[in-house]
Amino acid sequence: MSFTTDATLFTFEGKLIKLTHDSTETKTKMNVNVYLPKQYETSSEKTIPVLLYLSGLTCTPNNASEKAFWQPFADQYGFAVVFPDTSPRGAAIEGEDESWDFGSGAGFYVDATVEKWAKNYRMYSYVHGELQEKLQIEFPKLDFSTISITGHSMGGYGALSGFFKNPNKYKSVSAFAPICNPIECQWGQKNFGGYLGEDKSAWAAYDPTELISKYEGSEIPEILIHTGTADPFYHRDAQLLPENLVAASKGTKFEGKVSSNLVEGYDHSYYFISSFVGQHAAYHAKYLGLSK
Amino acid sequence: MSFTTDATLFTFEGKLIKLTHDSTETKTKMNVNVYLPKQYETSSEKTIPVLLYLSGLTCTPNNASEKAFWQPFADQYGFAVVFPDTSPRGAAIEGEDESWDFGSGAGFYVDATVEKWAKNYRMYSYVHGELQEKLQIEFPKLDFSTISITGHSMGGYGALSGFFKNPNKYKSVSAFAPICNPIECQWGQKNFGGYLGEDKSAWAAYDPTELISKYEGSEIPEILIHTGTADPFYHRDAQLLPENLVAASKGTKFEGKVSSNLVEGYDHSYYFISSFVGQHAAYHAKYLGLSK
Repeated sequence: MSFTTDATLFTFEGKLIKLTHDSTETKTKMNVNVYLPKQYETSSEKTIPVLLYLSGLTCTPNNASEKAFWQPFADQYGFAVVFPDTSPRGAAIEGEDESWDFGSGAGFYVDATVEKWAKNYRMYSYVHGELQEKLQIEFPKLDFSTISITGHSMGGYGALSGFFKNPNKYKSVSAFAPICNPIECQWGQKNFGGYLGEDKSAWAAYDPTELISKYEGSEIPEILIHTGTADPFYHRDAQLLPENLVAASKGTKFEGKVSSNLVEGYDHSYYFISSFVGQHAAYHAKYLGLSK
Repeated sequence: MSFTTDATLFTFEGKLIKLTHDSTETKTKMNVNVYLPKQYETSSEKTIPVLLYLSGLTCTPNNASEKAFWQPFADQYGFAVVFPDTSPRGAAIEGEDESWDFGSGAGFYVDATVEKWAKNYRMYSYVHGELQEKLQIEFPKLDFSTISITGHSMGGYGALSGFFKNPNKYKSVSAFAPICNPIECQWGQKNFGGYLGEDKSAWAAYDPTELISKYEGSEIPEILIHTGTADPFYHRDAQLLPENLVAASKGTKFEGKVSSNLVEGYDHSYYFISSFVGQHAAYHAKYLGLSK
């Protein structure tokens, strides 16, 4: 058995499965939650599309499972939702638990090259590769060839970055308060510096604002982003910089296709995320070929 | 100012207001959250009906605010939701923080008579009286004369108990995994014994299964209850006993009107609650005179 089932929770009209498995990428035990919509039980093999949701700093798979409210929309449209963890945990690396925004809970969806982290902190290859391959085997009714991607904050960056780096893999990409230009903000500099070292060309290979002009895919979906004007990481700390991504889209295949919405008064929390999950679900459902 | 606003959170199409105030009933500072639906801003005085949601053991006002997902339904129908705390906190009573199911976080919605607790643990008078009166003044557009009540677990018991003890006050009552017959279960015996003493006639005055035959109101709504079959407090510990309430309804005004639904596979968590909030919202909206 590749996965161990820790819990099967009945929620809305489907089931949330809490799993653990030994990852070959991170060399640790990893947690992941999968929401199987009501359509799963009676479906045939490889018929249920997948939405990959990447969480933000400090989160486990449980935060979004309990507070983002994807379940009723997954049931409405008929897609599964995969909630990976945000980093390896318990890798026994000195200092990995010292900072809330680096190390445990903050894998930043890169493959680390700095020696200290390189063995375990391989979240890029884990979420876009190993995890999907193993879940396809575990849940044969899911169709990982019909997949879209979304995420929040660090996970919103991870979704955008992963979309641009994997041409034509993801049918659509959306993000809630994403870190759009990590090279230019403190979170990005701390994490890219820590995991990738001082060579900034390595950083650019993960930065959505750098990657958007280099995208080699033929499928060009609209990109849906919501950011709250009362989000302190937006208005106070300039960690998110959605304007930079929009500006960088000019002259690229995505010119006019980045739908970056500043929403008045919303903050950075799940109160914000859950408010717009319905819109993001409808957006992804369209690209996943699902009707109401 | 009766209330201090700690936070105003934009969520869904309304606002969640986090408040504190000095309670005359509990003689402590109390926390309460209020969700104002999208209709609030443009409404006239005393036009927005209210749903009172009583939480379960250990919860603060924040748990249900973040995880029960009343907000989209409150917006759909146009009612406000009030989330009180589950006990006084910081009353400086010896032992109040020692047990997870007695004292802090476990006020059991009674007015304590045992001397040690009697000064502060007056959650019955607080939630059904003082809190509503003060919120009516603070939010004049809310209409506390058009109010329904619901809750979870200890709060489901509190909703049923409060409904039966206040004839014609609440338009409707529903509950998620309520403790229906506290006299007959360990949670009820511990809390009633602790707050009300050994005289069991005092216990009966709060027990829904005892009260249902004594209800003096003329308005007899259906009573909506959901309980999960995988809820360990139901199937393992016999803390909930919904069958006793249904049996006690025979020969009363509520005969045939207790809709007690055992739902296969659901547990006691917010994953369960949020799955059925939509049904409960539609039920209460009907009695609150709200259409879609």
